[in-house]
Amino acid sequence: MADKARIQEAVKAQGEVVRRLKADKASKEQIDEEVAKLLELKAQLGGDDGKQTFVLKTAKGTRDYNPKQMAIREKVFNTIVSCFKRHGAETIDTPVFELKETLTGKYGEDSKLIYDLKDQGGELLSLRYDLTVPFARYLAMNKITNIKRYHIAKVYRRDNPAMTRGRYREFYQCDFDIAGQYDPMIPDAECLKIVYEILSELDLGDFHIKVNDRRILDGMFAVCGVPDEKFRTICSTVDKLDKMLWEDVKNEMVKEKGLTEEAADQIGEYVSMQGGMDLAERLLHDPKLSQSKQACAGLTDMKQLFSYLQLFQITDKVVFDLSLARGLDYYTGVIYEAVLCQTLQAPTPAPAEQNGAVSGEEGGVSVGSVAGGGRYDGLVGMFDPKGRKVPCVGVSIGIERIFSIMEQKAELSAEKVRTTETQVLVASAQKNLLEERLRLTAELWNAGIKAELLYKKNPKLLTQLQHCEETGIPLVAILGEQELKDGVVKVRNVATREEVDVSRAELVEEIKKRTSES
Amino acid sequence: MADKARIQEAVKAQGEVVRRLKADKASKEQIDEEVAKLLELKAQLGGDDGKQTFVLKTAKGTRDYNPKQMAIREKVFNTIVSCFKRHGAETIDTPVFELKETLTGKYGEDSKLIYDLKDQGGELLSLRYDLTVPFARYLAMNKITNIKRYHIAKVYRRDNPAMTRGRYREFYQCDFDIAGQYDPMIPDAECLKIVYEILSELDLGDFHIKVNDRRILDGMFAVCGVPDEKFRTICSTVDKLDKMLWEDVKNEMVKEKGLTEEAADQIGEYVSMQGGMDLAERLLHDPKLSQSKQACAGLTDMKQLFSYLQLFQITDKVVFDLSLARGLDYYTGVIYEAVLCQTLQAPTPAPAEQNGAVSGEEGGVSVGSVAGGGRYDGLVGMFDPKGRKVPCVGVSIGIERIFSIMEQKAELSAEKVRTTETQVLVASAQKNLLEERLRLTAELWNAGIKAELLYKKNPKLLTQLQHCEETGIPLVAILGEQELKDGVVKVRNVATREEVDVSRAELVEEIKKRTSES
Repeated sequence: MADKARIQEAVKAQGEVVRRLKADKASKEQIDEEVAKLLELKAQLGGDDGKQTFVLKTAKGTRDYNPKQMAIREKVFNTIVSCFKRHGAETIDTPVFELKETLTGKYGEDSKLIYDLKDQGGELLSLRYDLTVPFARYLAMNKITNIKRYHIAKVYRRDNPAMTRGRYREFYQCDFDIAGQYDPMIPDAECLKIVYEILSELDLGDFHIKVNDRRILDGMFAVCGVPDEKFRTICSTVDKLDKMLWEDVKNEMVKEKGLTEEAADQIGEYVSMQGGMDLAERLLHDPKLSQSKQACAGLTDMKQLFSYLQLFQITDKVVFDLSLARGLDYYTGVIYEAVLCQTLQAPTPAPAEQNGAVSGEEGGVSVGSVAGGGRYDGLVGMFDPKGRKVPCVGVSIGIERIFSIMEQKAELSAEKVRTTETQVLVASAQKNLLEERLRLTAELWNAGIKAELLYKKNPKLLTQLQHCEETGIPLVAILGEQELKDGVVKVRNVATREEVDVSRAELVEEIKKRTSES
Repeated sequence: MADKARIQEAVKAQGEVVRRLKADKASKEQIDEEVAKLLELKAQLGGDDGKQTFVLKTAKGTRDYNPKQMAIREKVFNTIVSCFKRHGAETIDTPVFELKETLTGKYGEDSKLIYDLKDQGGELLSLRYDLTVPFARYLAMNKITNIKRYHIAKVYRRDNPAMTRGRYREFYQCDFDIAGQYDPMIPDAECLKIVYEILSELDLGDFHIKVNDRRILDGMFAVCGVPDEKFRTICSTVDKLDKMLWEDVKNEMVKEKGLTEEAADQIGEYVSMQGGMDLAERLLHDPKLSQSKQACAGLTDMKQLFSYLQLFQITDKVVFDLSLARGLDYYTGVIYEAVLCQTLQAPTPAPAEQNGAVSGEEGGVSVGSVAGGGRYDGLVGMFDPKGRKVPCVGVSIGIERIFSIMEQKAELSAEKVRTTETQVLVASAQKNLLEERLRLTAELWNAGIKAELLYKKNPKLLTQLQHCEETGIPLVAILGEQELKDGVVKVRNVATREEVDVSRAELVEEIKKRTSES
């Protein structure tokens, strides 16, 4: 009962948050998010009463896509898939869940974020956490030693959602990977070229791509005196440099992870370095770093990579950045991450969200990384019974953040997003012509024309025209007694209101001609 | 230990099944299925030993799609989506899981097949079982009263898989639904037109579409003396008529469900009736059936429906069939199901599968229904807090069975399925031209040409040409010292082996011209 009183308090407080947001005319997304929290709290109360309070919502951290969002999503996917196909990629698909053991031991500290299925008898299953581990499982299971494939599908993480910033528990990944034993850095360079092409074509504003190499990081840790067993955990801490100040990162290294202050300071010097091929060259002669064979191998490859990037003419956006670490355990070589320079023009964040908000360099809310990836030469071998390795390099496009930006752009733009592709509405100004409308509509469908009619026996002409204006249908084919007698159809241009009689036999061609530009 | 011995026996027996299939050169699919069972058994043994036997497989009843299967899938989806768009549909998407309570009470006896997620704290979630219930939840949640939408996504059922017949635990549904208060039978007729168009365009051979109405069934049950509370369960039994003989169906009604023999026999007479508008007309004057107001309403609408189908010129494939019942609880009016007449040319079924196999009329293995749907006017109201109804009618295309057929067709066909769209391979016959190849490839990518190169410093020309033949790339752009000096590229047609020098400036246009047909 004490619990119940506590929840009732929380309901009240959360109700206040929602009311305030509404009064402030906050964005629909933000309000929806807070309303969802309110409903969850209310549901807890309902449960206590033993009364079934039915909650009409999607699961926490997930969302529906409405038709407008789908239209934007389709456009973004088309751009990305076209790029993948331009680079000769095939595509595969894998199930949404894997055997639990397939995912075990692949994600380090993040494993706690994996969704498990209930044990209903049979196998223990988990929802996929990314597309890379299923890809490696697929390669090992089918003994495939080389393939260039893309895979676009949803993945699942029980993370703390921040939906106004495009962070969900169910979200899309768009992955492109090249598996196979090839000459160094050629596929790696192509992955960077792909990121460059996609971000340019999506027209998201300026961006840059940070590049580093796990071998350089490991070499750096070694020469700075980090004990071997702490490489991965120190790497995770370095990975936070894009979200935390160096002071805080250093604190975590020294106080939480037990590194000496001296080692931390040495790391601090290296991770502040940024450059291009010149930096790689310089570090190859760095008295300390050049002691590490690993670092030298990484730096030599980095030089090679930059020479290919020069051929591709994309070095203007690529920066060799020693602070880039990436969280996942499985990377073994080159790693990269693309970041938009623009900051999201988000509305004032809801009070509940402010804690988690990341301040970008320009003071707004940073959208953070929109693509990332790297080389993982050991992952497939973890699945192969004989440990046979298949070298892989790949990139994952962080599509949800891109959707958020595209949606905002669409909202700011004057142009209306169409959610259907209908070319013509078959209409009538007179009564009792339903059957004629049905007949003509079927004729148009059979000729491949995208056509609609209103599902009413006798709709008003005005209603029919309004439907066109609302949904962006450019043409109306109007039938009347006279038109039927004359064997014609009145074709009306919705925008200009011009009308012209077209003979029934020429109607299909006329519609095609008039809508061929769109 | 006794258990362990039993499993060891089972492993041995299953190993024998696999060996026999391999000896008989059974299809890869069949062998894979039996191997999966073998691996599962072995895994059980491993668990008993306390030894981790890592099983490299996908979850039971699921599969990966390889690039060839994906190419076929893309083609099928394109056909279906084009049809949906031709009919003016928008699209939406919903999360793969819903709150468990959203799915509760919607599927009758089939609810036991729902996948639940493990309770990891927070909400109780289940994987979606179909796309219809999430659609209804979406409408109620967003207070949408009319929409025409399609949704293509995977759904999940813990059913007994029969993968050689296209029955999986994870499978695609392609749904098209029309929600809104409209004049009777107009949207219903459009749904049937859509099924007709899609099955015709996919070129799957002859088919027919059975139509019935839940109100006619209920009226029939009433006049045959079925007690009200047994309507749904008797309906489920009638639904088995496509898989069971009448004798067995009758037996289930009488012995299992306690119907009188007389009532069952009367039902038996009705459910043997098939026809068109004439049958609806005749039954409207049937002395017994016309006693039921419900049945009369259904029969009147059936006549109306057939009049629209005549306008659409699709009555040749549509049959009013009183034995059609459909399993799901939520239908309230017209129901339909499309069945292919052709039988799948399946290889001899594996011994373990024979029990479940359904004999088609022509003695082969029937692929069964490939599309189905109907009217459900009450479902959205179940989600609305005030019970407001939104009438809906829709159709779901059973895409997995269609994939199976298309895959078989592709295997029998001489034409090779391409898995990439690459137009040209940038190649070289001489050494040390990697950089020139990279430069030219990037030029082509930037001009929108789909181009590849081999990721080797000095690949042999033969290897490069073989790659084209294997993957169906039609053109090769060959660079050599001489070509570089002359500012040209040698363009080779892979099929005819013709070669011609093209100036670098004209290369893009030349490739576009030569590949514009494909």
